[in-house]
Amino acid sequence: MSTMRDEIRQQPEIIERTLQEESKRAERLGEHLARRPVNFIVLVARGTSDNAAQFGRYLLEICTGIPVSLAAPSISTLYGAPLAWKNALVIAVSQSGESTDTNLVLDRAKEAGAFTIGITNESESTLAKLADHAFLVRAGKERSVAATKTYTGQLICFYLLTAALGAAVKMEHLKRIAEWVAGALLLETEIRGRAERYCFMRQAVCVGRGLNYSNAFEFALKLMETCYVVAERFSSADLLHGPIAMLEANFPAFLFCPSGVTWKPTCELLDKLDTIGAEALLITDRANPHAAERRGTPVEPIVIPADIRVEAGIADDLYTPIPYIVPAQLLAASLAEVKGLDPDRPRALSKVTQTL
Amino acid sequence: MSTMRDEIRQQPEIIERTLQEESKRAERLGEHLARRPVNFIVLVARGTSDNAAQFGRYLLEICTGIPVSLAAPSISTLYGAPLAWKNALVIAVSQSGESTDTNLVLDRAKEAGAFTIGITNESESTLAKLADHAFLVRAGKERSVAATKTYTGQLICFYLLTAALGAAVKMEHLKRIAEWVAGALLLETEIRGRAERYCFMRQAVCVGRGLNYSNAFEFALKLMETCYVVAERFSSADLLHGPIAMLEANFPAFLFCPSGVTWKPTCELLDKLDTIGAEALLITDRANPHAAERRGTPVEPIVIPADIRVEAGIADDLYTPIPYIVPAQLLAASLAEVKGLDPDRPRALSKVTQTL
Repeated sequence: MSTMRDEIRQQPEIIERTLQEESKRAERLGEHLARRPVNFIVLVARGTSDNAAQFGRYLLEICTGIPVSLAAPSISTLYGAPLAWKNALVIAVSQSGESTDTNLVLDRAKEAGAFTIGITNESESTLAKLADHAFLVRAGKERSVAATKTYTGQLICFYLLTAALGAAVKMEHLKRIAEWVAGALLLETEIRGRAERYCFMRQAVCVGRGLNYSNAFEFALKLMETCYVVAERFSSADLLHGPIAMLEANFPAFLFCPSGVTWKPTCELLDKLDTIGAEALLITDRANPHAAERRGTPVEPIVIPADIRVEAGIADDLYTPIPYIVPAQLLAASLAEVKGLDPDRPRALSKVTQTL
Repeated sequence: MSTMRDEIRQQPEIIERTLQEESKRAERLGEHLARRPVNFIVLVARGTSDNAAQFGRYLLEICTGIPVSLAAPSISTLYGAPLAWKNALVIAVSQSGESTDTNLVLDRAKEAGAFTIGITNESESTLAKLADHAFLVRAGKERSVAATKTYTGQLICFYLLTAALGAAVKMEHLKRIAEWVAGALLLETEIRGRAERYCFMRQAVCVGRGLNYSNAFEFALKLMETCYVVAERFSSADLLHGPIAMLEANFPAFLFCPSGVTWKPTCELLDKLDTIGAEALLITDRANPHAAERRGTPVEPIVIPADIRVEAGIADDLYTPIPYIVPAQLLAASLAEVKGLDPDRPRALSKVTQTL
């Protein structure tokens, strides 16, 4: 068994532990932030952590109304341009806490007077020491080059930060996430069987919208890293603004399909994919029966055995992103196996990548 | 001849005209903005216009130090979340000025108290009327579905806006851009010949960094729309953080390679591509002899016949993005011809795409 698969399975426990150990400290952070003006938030990261930041962007803007920007590190690292970050909250996300560029940006942010936060898996890392506040992902050492458990752990930290900023993210709901992830893990054998179909797949497109947009990026990254598939990633809207032209009959598309506000535009895209004859595989849960029962394609949707919306007692897709990435992680790990590749040691990669 | 090719050729004239007719109005805008606090800037767009916004993001942050965010339209259009945009400058970019989602976001920004700007090709459009200030791209009607001349026209408007915000972008330098574009157009016959090589290309990766990052997105979009190539796009740093694993011997990579601060990290990527045996095609100008004389790959670099850095009298890549996209536009238009496709009418697309 790959380390990647083993680490995917550890996620319910890590989510519970991170919630438990970080929630008190998040409360204290909240008290501190309530006394500071936060005009806007800047997120800085690379790779999988950058995908987690993409989720943070949506979550924070939707729940707090504070404008969020995903930093372009080269503006600090290469162009050396000073940015007016005085009343900003600048958050660096890094599994290792040792990314040269994100740490440099955080350093510049401190100099500019920003309040800084780090989200990292390593309590003794440069990032954990550098930031004014550190959220620690309690994932244990991540040994696979393909990050999985630190991604979902970083997402949990973004929920805690959002709660700390006073938004309506409730601990009682967050505590259910581990259970939904455990439900998604029950699909492991089914997904191992489904992976066979994609053995010869060379290219694909991953689609997510709103809170699940980051999952499209993360699934595509896993397909690129561990299966060497040229995987594009778009929101349903961006795909329609041009790239859809490259799709043809049987082109594989993977779509994250929660119920809620993103479902209607996703349906419009699905109609278009059906017209083209592209092959759509939907990832959904029981809260979206329209997606779960979709019969228009040769492949059945992947349905997480939970009704997340009803169980959370809320009207939208707020808690879907963590459970939804799990079937995608399993599919990537399984496809690597089917293709005879080692997902823990992709060619041309090492665990910590240093760039400027 | 395709309309796309015809419109590519019109660019020097359009750039001159847009500069001439919009610069006075930009000055007046500058006087107005000097009396307002601008804490941050938000850019909102889709498709090619979103790629122009990506350029605007780098240009504005590098030159003005004001933090910039690329809006996620769904936060307003689907989630209906109100954003704290009171002291923001919110800029919508749209060729037609009739994109439902970007106009809706601009409307919300006005309600929130932001100062709003539109950048559009259509003076009578909803966007031109809605925004507090409109920059008009003087491109004439764009008839090809594949946008080219409005992209470079939008970039010119971003330079004028940056100058209006008091940054060191000088009219005397901007006036040279049309000439460098004319120089790039001299490569048309050469590029038509080079396109033959890529006749059977199914996938590719486009790479740009900093101010040329948007060009990687725009070239990839043209390859997807007009040539049906599955074209990925990354910064050199992001490619190294995972996706590089999918590259193998002969995998085609297209890289924008100006001289200046982005060249060193691009070289590091080139070394890695050489090790893999991937095929790198560089787009550069005479100011970067290291790129222009590169002999490591089976294909010669495309060299724009100008020394942009010396001619502009500045030390960096500030004025390269507009000339640099021109060979890429020509290559996409030529490749569509080679493949027997009509770049003016890609399958599954119409000129104005409406999404929410």
